[in-house]
Amino acid sequence: MTAKSPPRSPAKAAPGAVAGAEAGPFERLLSMVEDDLARVTALIRERMSSPHAPRIPEISAHLIEAGGKRLRPILTLAASRLCGYEGADHIKLATTVEFIHTATLLHDDVVDESQKRRGRATANILWDNKSSVLVGDYLFSRAFQLMVETGSVEVLRILSDASAVIAEGEVLQLTTAHDLTTDLGRYDQVIRGKTAALFAAATEVGGVIAGAAPEKVEALRIYGDGLGMAFQLADDLLDYGGSTAALGKNTGDDFREGKVTLPVILAYSRGDAGARDFWRRTIARGKVLDGDLERAQAYLCETDALGDTQAAARCHAERALAALAAFAPGEMRKALEDIVDFVVARTV
Amino acid sequence: MTAKSPPRSPAKAAPGAVAGAEAGPFERLLSMVEDDLARVTALIRERMSSPHAPRIPEISAHLIEAGGKRLRPILTLAASRLCGYEGADHIKLATTVEFIHTATLLHDDVVDESQKRRGRATANILWDNKSSVLVGDYLFSRAFQLMVETGSVEVLRILSDASAVIAEGEVLQLTTAHDLTTDLGRYDQVIRGKTAALFAAATEVGGVIAGAAPEKVEALRIYGDGLGMAFQLADDLLDYGGSTAALGKNTGDDFREGKVTLPVILAYSRGDAGARDFWRRTIARGKVLDGDLERAQAYLCETDALGDTQAAARCHAERALAALAAFAPGEMRKALEDIVDFVVARTV
Repeated sequence: MTAKSPPRSPAKAAPGAVAGAEAGPFERLLSMVEDDLARVTALIRERMSSPHAPRIPEISAHLIEAGGKRLRPILTLAASRLCGYEGADHIKLATTVEFIHTATLLHDDVVDESQKRRGRATANILWDNKSSVLVGDYLFSRAFQLMVETGSVEVLRILSDASAVIAEGEVLQLTTAHDLTTDLGRYDQVIRGKTAALFAAATEVGGVIAGAAPEKVEALRIYGDGLGMAFQLADDLLDYGGSTAALGKNTGDDFREGKVTLPVILAYSRGDAGARDFWRRTIARGKVLDGDLERAQAYLCETDALGDTQAAARCHAERALAALAAFAPGEMRKALEDIVDFVVARTV
Repeated sequence: MTAKSPPRSPAKAAPGAVAGAEAGPFERLLSMVEDDLARVTALIRERMSSPHAPRIPEISAHLIEAGGKRLRPILTLAASRLCGYEGADHIKLATTVEFIHTATLLHDDVVDESQKRRGRATANILWDNKSSVLVGDYLFSRAFQLMVETGSVEVLRILSDASAVIAEGEVLQLTTAHDLTTDLGRYDQVIRGKTAALFAAATEVGGVIAGAAPEKVEALRIYGDGLGMAFQLADDLLDYGGSTAALGKNTGDDFREGKVTLPVILAYSRGDAGARDFWRRTIARGKVLDGDLERAQAYLCETDALGDTQAAARCHAERALAALAAFAPGEMRKALEDIVDFVVARTV
């Protein structure tokens, strides 16, 4: 499954009240783009409507208003502000990014046969797979219409390239499921498609629309890519450790679906004969018995697969932080740096 | 289901040999863009490949090389030539159009739970729904990448608008299935989304890329829309009349799926109490028994629903023909005119 958003903050504080010392890194970043985000939310509502097919806004709203943190559109808004942008097209681009994300979630839930997302029943369960496929297509088309309105061919290039990497990664994930011969290179491609490609495009287009210098645009792309890779690695780790209540997702979903993530690749390659038999039965052949998740967790610990996955996340996080050095120190740069630590800290 | 291509010509004649007096209207049009179409075919093969996920070209090739006539890309090539285009970007646009069409077919087969398309098992049956959804997404992204390469924001606007109409029409079709209160306005929106929107975009972008005058571009849009509407009306009619062997589709598919097409709307509104009961049982409640297709055909005949559907197809065809008057008479205009008659003649 595609990366979950971090758990929503319990305190729905009044605007302005979240920037205090107690607020977390996410809330601080949010407070800096809050007005813009309200405009994005309004544009989302406006553009997901369909005069002819009322089922479209029903389904879109179910997912879009279900409490995702809107991290991706926030990144676009923050990146454009970091580059000093004062126009209005970043609102359209942030909406585009959220629509592409929502479209992939709808299709992803069909592909994964998911029952739950963000703690609620998924659209494919509440309506049907057909509607999820078609409403996803609709949102994807709406995303491209919004980009076209900015008139920037460069933005269209970046986001259509990202869309192709996303779709390719999803197909690759389908063919790597249950396949214990999956190597690190293929795993990287899968998680880049699942998460990092859209993060990277989200930050890069923020720079492009602001007319930033090429080296700053490139720095933003690297920042988004590093952040996204760290985010997905943290997510893959959490599947073997987080608690269901906090995440709106069941721990062990990836395990039960036979997904070959980095923790599994490492534990399998380092395991003894008994461990390797265990992974072959559970991941490759899909025979998961009571107590197997706990046994998997034990193998992951013993082989230090969890620690090394966390180290890999940290490595991508460092890359993201280093990229921000292209920008002068300041409040926005600091907020974007803190988000990186926040994402990796989810794995602890 | 989305409109079928006209049945493939049995003679796979050598290039140049098809332009003779015996060749049909489709073969004559084909012969006029044959070299361009070969370049489109090469570009399709190049761009549907994926370095990382070999399943993508497998599935795409299954559908793209299964014997569709490529009417939509041919229309783009012909429209650009009609406007005197001498550049190379029409090849990319024709490929874009074919990719969008193929992506919608893949998703359409998942939505319709189809077993057969163009006389062969569908991808959702041969592989699975998951792959069909994701490979469709991939082709859609590749389509946008190709458009971006032309650098024309106007082309991107036209085709992203068409994509939204297509997706909206598909969702609308989902909600009108089994619904005998569907009126002519909603039916028009459904078939515009299913077929006419992409036909119209295919011809319009041919004019745009050629730098044609606005009134010529608009004429091409109307031509494509009229042709597409006539095409889909003919298709809906054929579902109650064509033979399985000729079409690679089973007669009666729409009937068994409870699709509310124009023949059904007319026959239901004009039927006596017995007929209306029949349509309620079969279309609305989905209880189809042996002999019901024949009974449906009899009701359609009695109420002249077939004749009036054909008249509606003819009316859109006339609109398409009238639009071509914006162009000077010539070989290409004649070939595009003849295609209109050919499409409507399928209903006889």
